[in-house]
Amino acid sequence: MDKTSQTSPSAELAAFAANLRFKDIPTPVVGRAVDLFVDWVGSALAGKGARPVETIAAFSKSMGPSEGLSEILIDGSFSSPFFAALVNGASSHIAEQDDVHNGSVFHPAAVVFPAALAVAQANRASGQDFIAAVTAGYEVGIRVGEFLGRSHYKIFHTTGTAGALAAAAATGRLLGLSPASMLDAFGSAGTQAAGLWEFLRDAADSKPLHTGKAAANGLVAAYLAKDGFTGAKQILEGRQGMAAGMSSDADPARLTDRLGVRWTLAETSFKFHASCRHTHPAADALLKAMRDNDLGMADIGSVTTLVHQGAIDVLGPVVSPSTVHQAKFSMGTTLGLIAAYGRAGMDEFEKGYARPEVTAFRDRVRMVLDDEVNTAYPACWIGKVLVETTDGRRIEARVDEPKGDPGNTLTRDEIDGKVRGLAAFSGAADVNDMDAMLPRLWQIDRANSIGPLMPARPDAG
Amino acid sequence: MDKTSQTSPSAELAAFAANLRFKDIPTPVVGRAVDLFVDWVGSALAGKGARPVETIAAFSKSMGPSEGLSEILIDGSFSSPFFAALVNGASSHIAEQDDVHNGSVFHPAAVVFPAALAVAQANRASGQDFIAAVTAGYEVGIRVGEFLGRSHYKIFHTTGTAGALAAAAATGRLLGLSPASMLDAFGSAGTQAAGLWEFLRDAADSKPLHTGKAAANGLVAAYLAKDGFTGAKQILEGRQGMAAGMSSDADPARLTDRLGVRWTLAETSFKFHASCRHTHPAADALLKAMRDNDLGMADIGSVTTLVHQGAIDVLGPVVSPSTVHQAKFSMGTTLGLIAAYGRAGMDEFEKGYARPEVTAFRDRVRMVLDDEVNTAYPACWIGKVLVETTDGRRIEARVDEPKGDPGNTLTRDEIDGKVRGLAAFSGAADVNDMDAMLPRLWQIDRANSIGPLMPARPDAG
Repeated sequence: MDKTSQTSPSAELAAFAANLRFKDIPTPVVGRAVDLFVDWVGSALAGKGARPVETIAAFSKSMGPSEGLSEILIDGSFSSPFFAALVNGASSHIAEQDDVHNGSVFHPAAVVFPAALAVAQANRASGQDFIAAVTAGYEVGIRVGEFLGRSHYKIFHTTGTAGALAAAAATGRLLGLSPASMLDAFGSAGTQAAGLWEFLRDAADSKPLHTGKAAANGLVAAYLAKDGFTGAKQILEGRQGMAAGMSSDADPARLTDRLGVRWTLAETSFKFHASCRHTHPAADALLKAMRDNDLGMADIGSVTTLVHQGAIDVLGPVVSPSTVHQAKFSMGTTLGLIAAYGRAGMDEFEKGYARPEVTAFRDRVRMVLDDEVNTAYPACWIGKVLVETTDGRRIEARVDEPKGDPGNTLTRDEIDGKVRGLAAFSGAADVNDMDAMLPRLWQIDRANSIGPLMPARPDAG
Repeated sequence: MDKTSQTSPSAELAAFAANLRFKDIPTPVVGRAVDLFVDWVGSALAGKGARPVETIAAFSKSMGPSEGLSEILIDGSFSSPFFAALVNGASSHIAEQDDVHNGSVFHPAAVVFPAALAVAQANRASGQDFIAAVTAGYEVGIRVGEFLGRSHYKIFHTTGTAGALAAAAATGRLLGLSPASMLDAFGSAGTQAAGLWEFLRDAADSKPLHTGKAAANGLVAAYLAKDGFTGAKQILEGRQGMAAGMSSDADPARLTDRLGVRWTLAETSFKFHASCRHTHPAADALLKAMRDNDLGMADIGSVTTLVHQGAIDVLGPVVSPSTVHQAKFSMGTTLGLIAAYGRAGMDEFEKGYARPEVTAFRDRVRMVLDDEVNTAYPACWIGKVLVETTDGRRIEARVDEPKGDPGNTLTRDEIDGKVRGLAAFSGAADVNDMDAMLPRLWQIDRANSIGPLMPARPDAG
């Protein structure tokens, strides 16, 4: 036995993921995992028709097999697990409606579920094994994101980097990897980890590529490990590992923080607005200011949002968004839609982001770094706005937990409605499809084996 | 027109790659490209039977299509370009016999040829287009490696990171990308760029994964760009790009250094010894000391190698190698084989790395940082050794250009012999196969269309 590998943070985390059993997971955590799964299906369906997603799907069809057991949700076709993970990973991160874990600034669903579903379908895994695998993926990915820290997130898209480890953990759990092989899978996943924020400046298509590749690369790592392919034993904390290369404030203690006691999956937030999560606290605070003071759009002269540094890093470069997707990274646009429509959902972004009254409002919104908000972040995402009305009033509003956070979560009815809305938006599934699917989705933990999610279609290949 | 994209170093480099024509390439550079191609085929064949390579090949067969036009050299099977690039990229970097560019510490062949060959075969490209694409790949990848600098190489395997850009350039050139689309391909390649040295500490299998994934990821980037998928316009030098995240001494001027005038492809070195290139200068210097002074292994008491910092960074962690592959990163083992056999080729590593006299010699070799060597590196790889003989003499030897460098290059006969030796070593091709293949390989630039390289086999699927 190699003592190092038994005692390193990477090894402890890998052993936890390999050994996690369904019966170890508290019932409320299982329930939340099912909620997150159903919520994710909505995001995966929402990617249908989005040009970057369809481009990745077309590439997958040209390079991959035309049949298999793993389902591509945007069109109900099937392929090998690799390509299903790639396409579903891409599709679930484009509507900006997938879940987020605050403390790690990591979007687990978009990388964990695509890999886990693809492998579970290929291997006809049980619902219980699927939930255990998904939970392993969340617990690993979130801790890796926390470990890599804020310095990492300034340059790297944590969902792309930590996401490869999360997908490896979920896939590895479904493949029944030993702790040692799970550690190998971590090594191969971490050495493939990538994703840079530079694309934001150009409104380029990289974001869904990051999630698709993280899901697929993590899956590759786990399959290779199953077959004996070895990886670095301390890819996370080693001297030439991920933190050494891509972080200046990494904290290895975060990797093993209360494993089996603290369930980070249950800390994960649902997204309510269809925009970058960094806009949500301010959006909720603006909504509160408008409701409490009965303000309409025309009453608002300007809005100062009091934010954390991460919001400025990610949203700051987006001054004049030229696409719907880029608009979701504009604080001003998001607040303009809130002001105009009372909400910032998929439809509002599509129809409203470029409207003159919204762009004019956008240019009257500014972000200012706030000490309290910045210190609380990323554990808490406090929303604070200062509204100056056209008649000269100064109105302050704050929200301590944005809508969708664990203390202000979505009900199953709200999730159901959100998923139906996303499917209808993209046209990936109609009302009948959703009526047929949703009851099964809500019982995924009780499935004897994970089969196709979409209803069988007479015209499907 | 976006002015930034017209004038940035990334955009200039992308335009060069997109616009490069065969007739723009000087004849000696074309000749060297053919030399490097033939040399690469040897390395690709040498990977047959290596467990990590065969594991990646088996994964590819399970996830990819079972037919296609792109050839997997280790077994003569065919698949889609994605999987052929993945497997050939992995196989060509495991014997440690593939080429290297000194200044960038980058192994171009292992990432450029796998991608270019897969796409050229799929599209039946001409030999001239193949050479133009390969040259674009070398010129881009080497400049990206030089740009990322020494700080990058301390943590990152430059062949994995810069390799994705190199593969994107070669693939993009074969797909006929416009300069703007080539820039998109660079963006998608750079945001997937990965590869950490951490695996060296554990003798893990990551190195061929890095080259396979770099080739495949770059190919993905170019195919997506062809279909309109956009990428960051300054993925290399942008504020949240590769250098920002993964380098502290990046120099954007290197990206466009004398494009079309300086041909970095022709600066690329062939590998003579079957070990990490960082061992070669000292190995050649030790050989010289032994020849000039008629020393045998038993005459040598100890060897002090005077090296650059990069050699210490990469080779330093390898104290007691436990596999053939790890032994190739051991300065002591490499010099032990030189002392024992007069060479450190594939066979010598296999049969000798664990022999008692070699391990005993290994432990009498040390590396010392040398100012002259370190300052000259990476442009020049000077070899200096100080040998203490068992009878008390102190012998110094130096080599200014290790065997295989442009000023001390391999002849075509030497390349021919090396390739035959590599194929025989792995059993990927027998003498008859090589007799049939080699004349065609040496004329690749004159092919009307690039077809399979291996002779047709009656039993091939």
